Amino acid sequence: MFIKEFLMISCIICSKNMMQRIFIIFLFALVSCSQKNEPKAKDQLYLPTKHIALEGLNHPWSISFLSENEALISEKDGNLLRVDLETKEKHIVKGFPTDLTDSIRVIHFGDNSGIFEVLLDNDFKKNQWIYLAYTAKKKGLGTTTKVVRAKFDKDSLYNHETLLVAEPYTKEYFHYGGGMTFGTDEKLYITIGERLFWERDEPEIPIAQDVTDKRGKIYRINPDGSIPEDNPDFGPNAVPGIYALGIRNTQGIAVQPETGKIWFTEHGTIQGDEINILKAGANYGWPNVTTGRLRSNDYNPPKLEDVTFTAPTWFWTHTVAPTGLTFYTGKEFPIWKNNLFVPGLSRGSLWRFRIEDETIKSAEELFIDDRVRIRKVKQSPNGKLYILTDEDNGKLIEIKTQ
Amino acid sequence: MFIKEFLMISCIICSKNMMQRIFIIFLFALVSCSQKNEPKAKDQLYLPTKHIALEGLNHPWSISFLSENEALISEKDGNLLRVDLETKEKHIVKGFPTDLTDSIRVIHFGDNSGIFEVLLDNDFKKNQWIYLAYTAKKKGLGTTTKVVRAKFDKDSLYNHETLLVAEPYTKEYFHYGGGMTFGTDEKLYITIGERLFWERDEPEIPIAQDVTDKRGKIYRINPDGSIPEDNPDFGPNAVPGIYALGIRNTQGIAVQPETGKIWFTEHGTIQGDEINILKAGANYGWPNVTTGRLRSNDYNPPKLEDVTFTAPTWFWTHTVAPTGLTFYTGKEFPIWKNNLFVPGLSRGSLWRFRIEDETIKSAEELFIDDRVRIRKVKQSPNGKLYILTDEDNGKLIEIKTQ
Repeated sequence: MFIKEFLMISCIICSKNMMQRIFIIFLFALVSCSQKNEPKAKDQLYLPTKHIALEGLNHPWSISFLSENEALISEKDGNLLRVDLETKEKHIVKGFPTDLTDSIRVIHFGDNSGIFEVLLDNDFKKNQWIYLAYTAKKKGLGTTTKVVRAKFDKDSLYNHETLLVAEPYTKEYFHYGGGMTFGTDEKLYITIGERLFWERDEPEIPIAQDVTDKRGKIYRINPDGSIPEDNPDFGPNAVPGIYALGIRNTQGIAVQPETGKIWFTEHGTIQGDEINILKAGANYGWPNVTTGRLRSNDYNPPKLEDVTFTAPTWFWTHTVAPTGLTFYTGKEFPIWKNNLFVPGLSRGSLWRFRIEDETIKSAEELFIDDRVRIRKVKQSPNGKLYILTDEDNGKLIEIKTQ
Repeated sequence: MFIKEFLMISCIICSKNMMQRIFIIFLFALVSCSQKNEPKAKDQLYLPTKHIALEGLNHPWSISFLSENEALISEKDGNLLRVDLETKEKHIVKGFPTDLTDSIRVIHFGDNSGIFEVLLDNDFKKNQWIYLAYTAKKKGLGTTTKVVRAKFDKDSLYNHETLLVAEPYTKEYFHYGGGMTFGTDEKLYITIGERLFWERDEPEIPIAQDVTDKRGKIYRINPDGSIPEDNPDFGPNAVPGIYALGIRNTQGIAVQPETGKIWFTEHGTIQGDEINILKAGANYGWPNVTTGRLRSNDYNPPKLEDVTFTAPTWFWTHTVAPTGLTFYTGKEFPIWKNNLFVPGLSRGSLWRFRIEDETIKSAEELFIDDRVRIRKVKQSPNGKLYILTDEDNGKLIEIKTQ
């Protein structure tokens, strides 16, 4: 009807020659409209597929984009790399802290030591600061999680500053945490695992419940390592910088852009894998409460006085080992906008959650027929969606639609 | 850039006055394009919501559409109804078989007796045949699953014909099955449960494994009740009409339009809920193999000679109690085309599976924050998606997008 009207009016006002030219242009308009929008009606467009962008990575843990085709990738069992996604070149970044210990140099059991999160400062282009979480060793004592920042330039690190050392150094090589994100408040949030494998090894006050112990906590610090004055108060004996406690092993922590809230994943023991929303001063319950089962059947957590536990927003009834989650805000997948993506190690699938504020409306497990251990899901500056696979020949894989 | 080009060329060929008129029309064109397609870019459009179409139903089990706004609904604990979705009127269909027993008249425990599937003949408009599965009683003996067909006219049933009686009649009131569908071969496929609650009550040869026992099977018969000559051969002593065995309790059975294959749900005991693809002569394993745990810890199934079990296409790691599934082929949800929808009783959510042939690519649990026991999901002639809720005040609910 619209086309008819257009032609009718055009006929009145234009010669035949003009008409043809206008009509051709008008058809272009309609075609361009339909071409742009039609594919959205096909399910295939939303059935994701995997496309290898880079391989030969040594158990990659984290990625931060310097530009659309250039990124820093941390290898848990290797190095900090600068990679070019066009030329596929990898450059080892020099000057990484020498007290690094990765799982190659220790017993290889469980999910263990190495380089964890690499993060750019919000003003990276001005100040060149990058933030690194990794396993640091101290001779004779063992290892622990350490967070440093350093200036990055010409594939080298310099002006190193230590921001957090999650002492004590111990002989256990598990559950370091090592996830980091900047909040909308421009504070740095850091996850530190409780470092135990068996609950029977817990001290009288469980590590994650003890505010005088640095382990099993989530921290909130200023980019320079100082402690914000508006942090929650855990008493005079509490470790500075604690923001939340009761954490077993959190690797994934990310900001929900719509709300500014911070969400994080949590590794359970036997099941008990969870997704939580970070609240100032909250206690997430480990090991006193869990949605799973304890690994030590004979362990009975002590009764704690005046404690309120914060329940998870989501938990699985099977083991997922959820890791580096992200909220998708790009334009490539319009119907995935603001969805939460959570990768998993143990089942090797990718989960998509549709969320309204703090309410999970639906949960979709993707790649059921194509599983691989996934450590991190991350979005590029232009809105491409990538995953990092936890393999000896680790890959950076772009998630595309058919 | 396109607009610029259009204006430039138009300027050459038209007076200012003409220009204004053409330009306005052209803007209409662009606006109409974006208006028509923009909503597809919003996830909200694909985040389903529930809208009550009809309520006051007594544990509805099945629905078959006579037209877009008129349907037959079977109430497990009530009657066969003709309903009008516009006026909301309900009419009890007269002439239902008098040997019906619903769970109101028996012990109320577990998922039990009543009216099950109601199905229209493919040539219903010509021959008025409808097909009914329900719990029939025989005095002193107990109950069993019975399938009849009858002519439906003026809200009455007449010319009843019995197609299948899943003898023996027993005192157990569980796991009748009662699901039905027509295949693309125009044969009638019927599910019959094994009727036990405890595995310890199994005879020496488990019911579902015994081809001389009518229970725990899936049948394939002609619409008139006769047995197709091309049915699989289970030997001279086998019950006529058996198409597959090893079934515990299947309520949902539906054709996959893309392939013509038949899919069915299966109730496990403790977990063990499954989705299977129906194959001629296949043995789905109950109670000898299950993806869940047996209810009787002390029960050991006998070793069976020369038996091959067919594995499920999907199973859950938690109890779902999956029921009346359907493949969506309508136009209302373009990105859901050919997806499999599976409702559940125990968790009360709705599952969406994306499938390529027999491969499940992704699984999405919908309505996580709005759970209700769902017995059936069905598509209307015009492609609307409906669910039936298993409640005292049972509802027919249309699934819409926001």
